[in-house]
Amino acid sequence: MDIVKYIQAAAARVDSALPGVVRGLHGAHPRLAESMEYSLAAGGKRLRPLLMGASYEIFGGKARDILPAACALEMVHTYSLVHDDLPAMDDDGLRRGRPTNHKVYGEALAILAGDALLTDAFTVLLSARYARRIKPEYVMAAARIMARRAGAGGMVSGQAADLEAEGFLRGTLTPARRRRGLELLSYIHLHKTADLITAAVEMGAALAGAPGKDFNALSGFGRELGLCFQVADDILDVVGDKKKLGKSGSDARNKKLTYASLLGVQGARREAGEMLGRALASLRRVSGAPGPKAALEAIAEFAYRREN
Amino acid sequence: MDIVKYIQAAAARVDSALPGVVRGLHGAHPRLAESMEYSLAAGGKRLRPLLMGASYEIFGGKARDILPAACALEMVHTYSLVHDDLPAMDDDGLRRGRPTNHKVYGEALAILAGDALLTDAFTVLLSARYARRIKPEYVMAAARIMARRAGAGGMVSGQAADLEAEGFLRGTLTPARRRRGLELLSYIHLHKTADLITAAVEMGAALAGAPGKDFNALSGFGRELGLCFQVADDILDVVGDKKKLGKSGSDARNKKLTYASLLGVQGARREAGEMLGRALASLRRVSGAPGPKAALEAIAEFAYRREN
Repeated sequence: MDIVKYIQAAAARVDSALPGVVRGLHGAHPRLAESMEYSLAAGGKRLRPLLMGASYEIFGGKARDILPAACALEMVHTYSLVHDDLPAMDDDGLRRGRPTNHKVYGEALAILAGDALLTDAFTVLLSARYARRIKPEYVMAAARIMARRAGAGGMVSGQAADLEAEGFLRGTLTPARRRRGLELLSYIHLHKTADLITAAVEMGAALAGAPGKDFNALSGFGRELGLCFQVADDILDVVGDKKKLGKSGSDARNKKLTYASLLGVQGARREAGEMLGRALASLRRVSGAPGPKAALEAIAEFAYRREN
Repeated sequence: MDIVKYIQAAAARVDSALPGVVRGLHGAHPRLAESMEYSLAAGGKRLRPLLMGASYEIFGGKARDILPAACALEMVHTYSLVHDDLPAMDDDGLRRGRPTNHKVYGEALAILAGDALLTDAFTVLLSARYARRIKPEYVMAAARIMARRAGAGGMVSGQAADLEAEGFLRGTLTPARRRRGLELLSYIHLHKTADLITAAVEMGAALAGAPGKDFNALSGFGRELGLCFQVADDILDVVGDKKKLGKSGSDARNKKLTYASLLGVQGARREAGEMLGRALASLRRVSGAPGPKAALEAIAEFAYRREN
């Protein structure tokens, strides 16, 4: 199995399916639909669909079977970015080199585009016609996972905690504040990042009707992978920018709470390494096809070492 | 059947169930949860849960059976109000006499509270334990309806068109512009208001496993009721304020597109009357228990004559 080709094929499938998904929402306001498509087309790694497809394939199906579900989760991810970039939130003008949604369509339509992407993720997931092997109760389980992991018990609470953490590092970092910072940070990473990545592997397993034991092992893999991915991101913000720009990253400039700012780059890298180890250990407990498992392993290694 | 008691009991059931719904979202960020509960507790008529329960009861069940679904739709309605009040949208500081969510919790948390209410409406609908008579496929059908009617094919597009209509009445109202205005307005009302009211009756019917013929008749009832409700709202904005304040309503002041501004109060009232007639005709085509049907009829009459 050629891992790079596997990853590229997964992204290409989602890239080509997403525009049709929005066009399938009949009666949609044209400019709203355009704004939704604009952000869906922004590309990115399509990590969540990739993880969902590989997790599903472990149990014998083909990732193409669950393409609507993969698109649905990517819609949830995209909505979270559109809202996160809003002036009232992170106030970002650029994402992946393109103007953010509200810069192009205005704040009001960006809010609505995010709302619609989130809502219609459920339309897409629940209305698709799946192959017979994917039973309705599997689809319902997947929808439950998506809602729980994305809602107040998951991702949105990570965003809320992130707001709370703004400016945390202004002032002296006493040992007590460092402890409180690590606590807050692990809550943020768990919910803001790991929950949706966990949802991806859980949904793949649920759609395959995977045994509980394998579902749980994959869930543990997703959680540690998500945490590792986010710590690597924190490190990149310091090291990546330093190399390229000769100065510290934007999170550091904003005195934002990150593992790198609390533990230093070396300490953060050690944490990420431990997360990777736990992710791979959990993955080894999953029984099933070795090819897709090798893909998941490669993705985890990549998340740890990534440079963008 | 005492209609007033029926309506009050329905509202009381939802009012008492909603706080527990948020508390059931384990791991939620405390301030986010507080912000969600704040807007859920704002009260209101609980019209959508009432309609869902009565529609369900037509087919022999008790509204209490589907309380989680009724709460879910009320969460969707509440999220739409929280986002609609945002500074980037209608910029409203008060709703039902209380400060709006963003006035109390700030814009960022209000956006997130809306996002979480919407997402967890699906958590609540899909995760609840229902009586055996409510089959999993009925719940899935209800979730599909909720997503479609609330998404880009429904409510959110109504909001988007509403943005487009702002300031429509500045400038001369030629016959061509009046026609365009009526077209735009019927799109707005259909999606912004009628879609979620239609969802309420459709979800009630779906959760009862109602026959297709009755489902469609109820759906037509919901649509005309929703339109009538909104036209009555437009009229109230002119007449209600005039009586109380001795001046025209806020929509009229804002040169907002309404039936009253396009057709005059008399013309709008005639339209509303025709909608009510069509709603009741559609309702008569539904077979099933007369009590709940009488309740739906009374609600429609109330929507037409309402004074608040």
